[in-house]
Amino acid sequence: MGKKFDMLALGEVLLRLSPEGNERLAQGTRFEKQLGGAELNVAVGAANLGLTTGIISKIPSHAIGNYAKREIRRNGVDTDYLAGDDSADSRLGIYYYEYGADPRKPQVVYDRKYSSVNKLSLEDFPEEMYENTRCFHTSGITLGLGGPVRENAIEMMKKFKEKGARISFDVNFRGNLWTGDEARDCITKILPIVDIFFCSESTANLTFGKTGDIKEILKSFSDEYDIAVVAATQRIVHSPKSHTFGSVIYEKKTDSYYEEKPYEKIEVVDRIGSGDAYISGFLYGLLKENGNCQDALEYGNAASAMKNTVSGDMLWTDPQEIQQTIEMHHSIGQDFEMKR
Amino acid sequence: MGKKFDMLALGEVLLRLSPEGNERLAQGTRFEKQLGGAELNVAVGAANLGLTTGIISKIPSHAIGNYAKREIRRNGVDTDYLAGDDSADSRLGIYYYEYGADPRKPQVVYDRKYSSVNKLSLEDFPEEMYENTRCFHTSGITLGLGGPVRENAIEMMKKFKEKGARISFDVNFRGNLWTGDEARDCITKILPIVDIFFCSESTANLTFGKTGDIKEILKSFSDEYDIAVVAATQRIVHSPKSHTFGSVIYEKKTDSYYEEKPYEKIEVVDRIGSGDAYISGFLYGLLKENGNCQDALEYGNAASAMKNTVSGDMLWTDPQEIQQTIEMHHSIGQDFEMKR
Amino acid sequence: MGKKFDMLALGEVLLRLSPEGNERLAQGTRFEKQLGGAELNVAVGAANLGLTTGIISKIPSHAIGNYAKREIRRNGVDTDYLAGDDSADSRLGIYYYEYGADPRKPQVVYDRKYSSVNKLSLEDFPEEMYENTRCFHTSGITLGLGGPVRENAIEMMKKFKEKGARISFDVNFRGNLWTGDEARDCITKILPIVDIFFCSESTANLTFGKTGDIKEILKSFSDEYDIAVVAATQRIVHSPKSHTFGSVIYEKKTDSYYEEKPYEKIEVVDRIGSGDAYISGFLYGLLKENGNCQDALEYGNAASAMKNTVSGDMLWTDPQEIQQTIEMHHSIGQDFEMKR
Amino acid sequence: MGKKFDMLALGEVLLRLSPEGNERLAQGTRFEKQLGGAELNVAVGAANLGLTTGIISKIPSHAIGNYAKREIRRNGVDTDYLAGDDSADSRLGIYYYEYGADPRKPQVVYDRKYSSVNKLSLEDFPEEMYENTRCFHTSGITLGLGGPVRENAIEMMKKFKEKGARISFDVNFRGNLWTGDEARDCITKILPIVDIFFCSESTANLTFGKTGDIKEILKSFSDEYDIAVVAATQRIVHSPKSHTFGSVIYEKKTDSYYEEKPYEKIEVVDRIGSGDAYISGFLYGLLKENGNCQDALEYGNAASAMKNTVSGDMLWTDPQEIQQTIEMHHSIGQDFEMKR
Amino acid sequence: MGKKFDMLALGEVLLRLSPEGNERLAQGTRFEKQLGGAELNVAVGAANLGLTTGIISKIPSHAIGNYAKREIRRNGVDTDYLAGDDSADSRLGIYYYEYGADPRKPQVVYDRKYSSVNKLSLEDFPEEMYENTRCFHTSGITLGLGGPVRENAIEMMKKFKEKGARISFDVNFRGNLWTGDEARDCITKILPIVDIFFCSESTANLTFGKTGDIKEILKSFSDEYDIAVVAATQRIVHSPKSHTFGSVIYEKKTDSYYEEKPYEKIEVVDRIGSGDAYISGFLYGLLKENGNCQDALEYGNAASAMKNTVSGDMLWTDPQEIQQTIEMHHSIGQDFEMKR
Amino acid sequence: MGKKFDMLALGEVLLRLSPEGNERLAQGTRFEKQLGGAELNVAVGAANLGLTTGIISKIPSHAIGNYAKREIRRNGVDTDYLAGDDSADSRLGIYYYEYGADPRKPQVVYDRKYSSVNKLSLEDFPEEMYENTRCFHTSGITLGLGGPVRENAIEMMKKFKEKGARISFDVNFRGNLWTGDEARDCITKILPIVDIFFCSESTANLTFGKTGDIKEILKSFSDEYDIAVVAATQRIVHSPKSHTFGSVIYEKKTDSYYEEKPYEKIEVVDRIGSGDAYISGFLYGLLKENGNCQDALEYGNAASAMKNTVSGDMLWTDPQEIQQTIEMHHSIGQDFEMKR
Repeated sequence: MGKKFDMLALGEVLLRLSPEGNERLAQGTRFEKQLGGAELNVAVGAANLGLTTGIISKIPSHAIGNYAKREIRRNGVDTDYLAGDDSADSRLGIYYYEYGADPRKPQVVYDRKYSSVNKLSLEDFPEEMYENTRCFHTSGITLGLGGPVRENAIEMMKKFKEKGARISFDVNFRGNLWTGDEARDCITKILPIVDIFFCSESTANLTFGKTGDIKEILKSFSDEYDIAVVAATQRIVHSPKSHTFGSVIYEKKTDSYYEEKPYEKIEVVDRIGSGDAYISGFLYGLLKENGNCQDALEYGNAASAMKNTVSGDMLWTDPQEIQQTIEMHHSIGQDFEMKR
Repeated sequence: MGKKFDMLALGEVLLRLSPEGNERLAQGTRFEKQLGGAELNVAVGAANLGLTTGIISKIPSHAIGNYAKREIRRNGVDTDYLAGDDSADSRLGIYYYEYGADPRKPQVVYDRKYSSVNKLSLEDFPEEMYENTRCFHTSGITLGLGGPVRENAIEMMKKFKEKGARISFDVNFRGNLWTGDEARDCITKILPIVDIFFCSESTANLTFGKTGDIKEILKSFSDEYDIAVVAATQRIVHSPKSHTFGSVIYEKKTDSYYEEKPYEKIEVVDRIGSGDAYISGFLYGLLKENGNCQDALEYGNAASAMKNTVSGDMLWTDPQEIQQTIEMHHSIGQDFEMKR
Repeated sequence: MGKKFDMLALGEVLLRLSPEGNERLAQGTRFEKQLGGAELNVAVGAANLGLTTGIISKIPSHAIGNYAKREIRRNGVDTDYLAGDDSADSRLGIYYYEYGADPRKPQVVYDRKYSSVNKLSLEDFPEEMYENTRCFHTSGITLGLGGPVRENAIEMMKKFKEKGARISFDVNFRGNLWTGDEARDCITKILPIVDIFFCSESTANLTFGKTGDIKEILKSFSDEYDIAVVAATQRIVHSPKSHTFGSVIYEKKTDSYYEEKPYEKIEVVDRIGSGDAYISGFLYGLLKENGNCQDALEYGNAASAMKNTVSGDMLWTDPQEIQQTIEMHHSIGQDFEMKR
Repeated sequence: MGKKFDMLALGEVLLRLSPEGNERLAQGTRFEKQLGGAELNVAVGAANLGLTTGIISKIPSHAIGNYAKREIRRNGVDTDYLAGDDSADSRLGIYYYEYGADPRKPQVVYDRKYSSVNKLSLEDFPEEMYENTRCFHTSGITLGLGGPVRENAIEMMKKFKEKGARISFDVNFRGNLWTGDEARDCITKILPIVDIFFCSESTANLTFGKTGDIKEILKSFSDEYDIAVVAATQRIVHSPKSHTFGSVIYEKKTDSYYEEKPYEKIEVVDRIGSGDAYISGFLYGLLKENGNCQDALEYGNAASAMKNTVSGDMLWTDPQEIQQTIEMHHSIGQDFEMKR
Repeated sequence: MGKKFDMLALGEVLLRLSPEGNERLAQGTRFEKQLGGAELNVAVGAANLGLTTGIISKIPSHAIGNYAKREIRRNGVDTDYLAGDDSADSRLGIYYYEYGADPRKPQVVYDRKYSSVNKLSLEDFPEEMYENTRCFHTSGITLGLGGPVRENAIEMMKKFKEKGARISFDVNFRGNLWTGDEARDCITKILPIVDIFFCSESTANLTFGKTGDIKEILKSFSDEYDIAVVAATQRIVHSPKSHTFGSVIYEKKTDSYYEEKPYEKIEVVDRIGSGDAYISGFLYGLLKENGNCQDALEYGNAASAMKNTVSGDMLWTDPQEIQQTIEMHHSIGQDFEMKR
Repeated sequence: MGKKFDMLALGEVLLRLSPEGNERLAQGTRFEKQLGGAELNVAVGAANLGLTTGIISKIPSHAIGNYAKREIRRNGVDTDYLAGDDSADSRLGIYYYEYGADPRKPQVVYDRKYSSVNKLSLEDFPEEMYENTRCFHTSGITLGLGGPVRENAIEMMKKFKEKGARISFDVNFRGNLWTGDEARDCITKILPIVDIFFCSESTANLTFGKTGDIKEILKSFSDEYDIAVVAATQRIVHSPKSHTFGSVIYEKKTDSYYEEKPYEKIEVVDRIGSGDAYISGFLYGLLKENGNCQDALEYGNAASAMKNTVSGDMLWTDPQEIQQTIEMHHSIGQDFEMKR
């Protein structure tokens, strides 16, 4: 398909620290050491499904940055555009994550300020980067970091758009990064160059003031900002260990909606990154050979359901497993317990 | 509120040894090392919620006793009245606990005989101790240890009562410590000085011969022994990993009952200490500034539900989390998955 | 009852490697190291329940074989007929097992070819072995290994039969070892000497071409091959973490069926070996003093339900626990949470 | 060689709890769970080297006792004479062990009082036990437990002696069990029936008032009490992680001494049980086919050196490895790093 | 001795993250989670030896801050003057520590900028704090943090001095916090109010331009700035796992030096905090009843040697153990391996 | 330098399973899961130092193969020429490794027969592979696997040579794969096309019948087979935890030798792969910009010494660390303990 990468994602790489098993953050003597970051998660999931992807970011040059780089490589994501921060105050942002159990909520403690990604500049990357990919993805988290990161992200979006890449954007609203008003003002400015837009129903309501049912909302985004594809995920949280997941997609060119029955009573091992995995599956369904919105729907839903059962932020899977999951989801009475 | 402690609890401190994860006691190569004991659990939970509490007990002076002392301190419970046993046969009582999974029951193996607490004497503690607290708590487990511990516990109750402390007592019947008849004979003798009484419905039936519904039972205890507040927890065990929990309280001075909908389908991580956590929350609701039975009910239920989701005997939480849990429990349709 | 062993089982001993907790095979830095093998599992479970059992197999003489031998002994199974392979290419077969979480299936990767059991020969065992047991058990897995193992297994069956042992056989069809046609051709040849036969409904349908309901199928096997007892387990897989388990037995001499209500919503910790545990319980129920098909049913079902809650392939339990489980299963409204 | 067992050992079985790695007893959240006991260690080591051995003791019938029984079996030691204690206050004695690092000493905390072994009585064992072994071993630890255990141990010694077993006895003086005077008075009474006697030089000096060099001491014991073989181990503790180990043996019938160069700068992983392993090797060297004092010396020293490098109380090894270790110890300039 | 605290220490509380065992920072899947900070380490060590100590600092109010607070309490250090940071960007400073093995050096990666301690202000603490202690301790690390922390630290020193506390100061030069010139200019300004001064020989040379032997240097500091006691530690690093440690003290009032033979070939488990442990022991020796410089020397050296053998930053010990270590260090030929 | 790769290595990829810490293979419940293989180790070490490297091999397509592929990528080695084996009997070879402690030897148990690498064929790789690298490396282990692997390896060597790559070969004699005679016959045939040759002194003596000192031996290989550079490592094994390491190099074009003082008393964490790391450092020193034999010597020795201190087969390091190690090795009296 002509370009070196199917997708490049811009976003912060984070160290994730979780207590073991069912312990609380203030208990115990060990942390599980994992890597995350919304856009990185999307790139990893898509790479595991078969796309050629890379991450655009900036991380410390020291041993902890080295850990991050190795983990990214392990997951098959290219690090050519992963800039190094050699300064004395370089740091990898951290988030602490505690698993929940009903009625105890999962808990996130962020320690991501002043991290190396905030020093990222356009000069860190060669000009040919913009010509090298079929799709560029980033999210509202990157914009929410504010300052030069926000400006550079918007500038990058424009440059990728100019060079012919499709622009994918996930609102991913985080109340701890910015207010709803700030988010709306910023995002509505970049929406006209977005081709693929992800926004949850509640964010559409609360942040963008959208009303009506989810289908009306999706179409209204598409109409208002001329967006080719708009998608919303639908998650029902029965408890921290049991979710139901589905999604709706609107495609402008055919003026049609895509839906299927949700994955019910998912046995949630780790819900972090399951929204990102949806985008991984979605973009794979769209960008693979003969990709289309129906495939985006099916791969997106299956990838997200699968991610919920995998420890860590990232979708560890392979195309066969997702394909099989889709088939089982659609089959009637032909399920099997396991192959052996 | 004038005194150094809001609550002092008397009881045995136990080392708890559990196999890791889902292993059985006879499997594996490691034990999880934790600290427990019914009354200590109450003091810890109340301390985490904001009361100033201390433990009255006796532990070995050697390294294992040192472990216990450090754990108690870590949980914010005062150790001024934690006597040390320097003798050659000092020992910390132990219980082995194995988690269950339906249809396999959880399993407890006790090894608590001859432990240092049995050498506790009134001389181990200064007289001013009795003036230093607003509330004294102990349970039927302490009485069930028998011998001098039982006598000293009863003597302490009287001395605390004299000095103006409210006396809190949890029946906590353990068939492995004494018979129902022994328990009834002993407990009915001390009930006249009890101010706050906790007794489960089944124990009321089987041990105290009470009949009628739970409300009648609660009132009958209050009437018969002139007890200010009587409470009963109600636990439905769907399986070792799924419980429903609620309670009923009777308050003598207003002749009224307090109830709310139970916490349903709690995702049980560790059920041990959840009854003790109820008492922690209850006493916090009653003893905090402007405390009352309604708060006792709400904090008690929430604390117990929360404890079931926390590994170990003890309630690791903070007042904000319990407050938020209560709000979610009472809210309609406004739940959130997690804050981030 | 006159002979040294109640039961001897022939089959491959396998090293099982699983990632920790909810990790995937390709994740993490450690494997749980366990021992398994269908027939060994049967021998272990039966030994834990009270039968005197032994394993007939061949394992390497090196340190990994030594690990296996020690684990077998720990579980109370005799190793007198466990031959050692001193050759340079001796190896213990391996299987990798990954736990599932809905919608992710559990996963098995086999690496069992060329293992030492394939070199097993009749010369490895003394002639008196055949006189030493009341029952001989093996399964379709052993026949499916093919080559000399299959021939030797059939030869052993005949020799044990001659010496008066009852022959127990579990179809245990594994599509990765042989085709359904191969299995049917081979198994139907040995069925005439089988006394106790285990076959699932789906295998009866697909492999043996049986039609009708499960009772008709069981009876048809018994009629056709003159088999004293035929049993089928019935498992409903709600999800990888929730199963329902029951069974049906047909006894020829009384022309009667044995059934009871299934164990519902078992909290599955590890489903591997739960079919083998059924046979352990079944054979214990049949072979113990005053054993009969009703006991076989009850012990079989309880043993399998219990096994699902225990980590590893093997049934770690004791007779009291299984007895108590059966009583609880049959009791109405008298359940208890745990004893303490 | 005619009898069922080469050796039966009488002694307490202990649960050993150690913190992980270099942690202190009061640190951390896990204990390593192991099994120990001086005489059991001797039986295990000897079994691993090739003798047929069994343990005579009494342990609880509950899950922790079950753990012990399984571990003993795993190590190849017979449990026919392992009595079960069904009483409510049955308990397995415990010792907590913390590894040292210079200048920090290793630390032992005992919690072994009131354990089930103290209820052991002669009625727990069949009369034929006394005829079933070529050698009976016990130690001063068993005598030091006092009470009925001491009396029964002495009675057993006499009965085994009558039935023709050689009596092996290790002083193993423990200052926390009895005083030197008590030990001397008790032990000198049983020495006349002892055939193989182990006593360290310092204990010979301090407890038995022996003077002179170690060879004179050994001979004086032999002369005074008519003991066939007397041995003393010699350990130099450079630091908790570095020991040098050797021994001297005196044989009465040849009036000769056996010595060899010590194992120097052993890299100590776990020194517990290394004295017991010496006795394992010693007895193997003496009791194996064509055994003699020279073999006792070489196997004893190698077994002890090897044990120091193995985690836990017990000697996990095999005859080939010990044989190879002896050869390397005696070889000059022909060492190899490892075989591959 | 009249005041509530023997010692209060001002300094940053740090989360320490280390890979397990011998892993590198970029390897593995877990971090050991520990707490550290030079001045906190001093307070903990002194508390474990018997002084009443507290920490002056500021930490986040969230779960990670809660972890820190609990760990501090566990170690017996008072948290009355531990201010909470409720702001959205509160953070606990972190350092990553990798153990070394010759020729690989241990490695430290700091991530401590922008942490909550930098927001500490004098208003966070009540005025009576300054009257409540016999000794105030801080170090060059606190001054090196710069900005308001440095100013507040100097102001606190003055206020404690005014209220009669002895001022203890450890240079603890860290090249990653400030340059030698900055350090010298700042420290020489506060030296006139310092009573107890710790400075290594190399820092005296390089940073303060001192020449001559260590005794001359110590005396010159004392003379120049009128300091009552000046001490220097002497560490020889044979390898990351083997150190030799000793110290020299100069006391002004007697114009005398204190020295003893060093602890040789310490088996280093974790060298971090061993310098702080020296100060713990030193201050205990000086501030305890009848304390003096000779005791300061002996307790300081023993505490540091001991700390090197303990995992984590902090000295987990008790007075008896240190006392025994000192005795063994001074004894000739009377060492013992362990007590049991 | 014109080509895509600096080095491509051909060899088997192995799963390595080791017990935790100091446990023996037959003990414990977990295996450490790591990846190894002599030639892969060389490629990884060289990649960590800065060369662009890839591995030529064949691994299973299933989850265990996926694990291997991810680990290789994590270490920065290209997987373009890592063929996948989709067959039902695909397997990743395994070796079990147990650490030693004097006098216990480290132990290796191989289970590598029938692995997927044995199915490797020239058709698995594109012709352009041979033009894409500056250097090709393989070892006697690959030749020792025999059969088609040996033939293909020799054919590949020739094709790489034709295309201008330098041929690097390490004898790496393994007695468990082939005899010395087989090895000599095979290797002497390929030596004429080898440019860089690694052979230990003992192998030169025993296998190739070389006599004289190591310098004479190196030169004789170079003269006889026209080899540009010949190197021999020199390891002194003081104990499993303490080695001394150095090497000698002969360069034909200058007829000169390269030597330096060895790294003494290395604190060995894991000696496996330290020989391979020598080659990594050697090839980096030779192939980097302005590389030469002096750099090969210094990087080779430092890389090997460093590897001994790192857990696992592979050299986890970075160029700065090795550079610093070399500087410290050559410095006199200017060492530092760590930077902070």
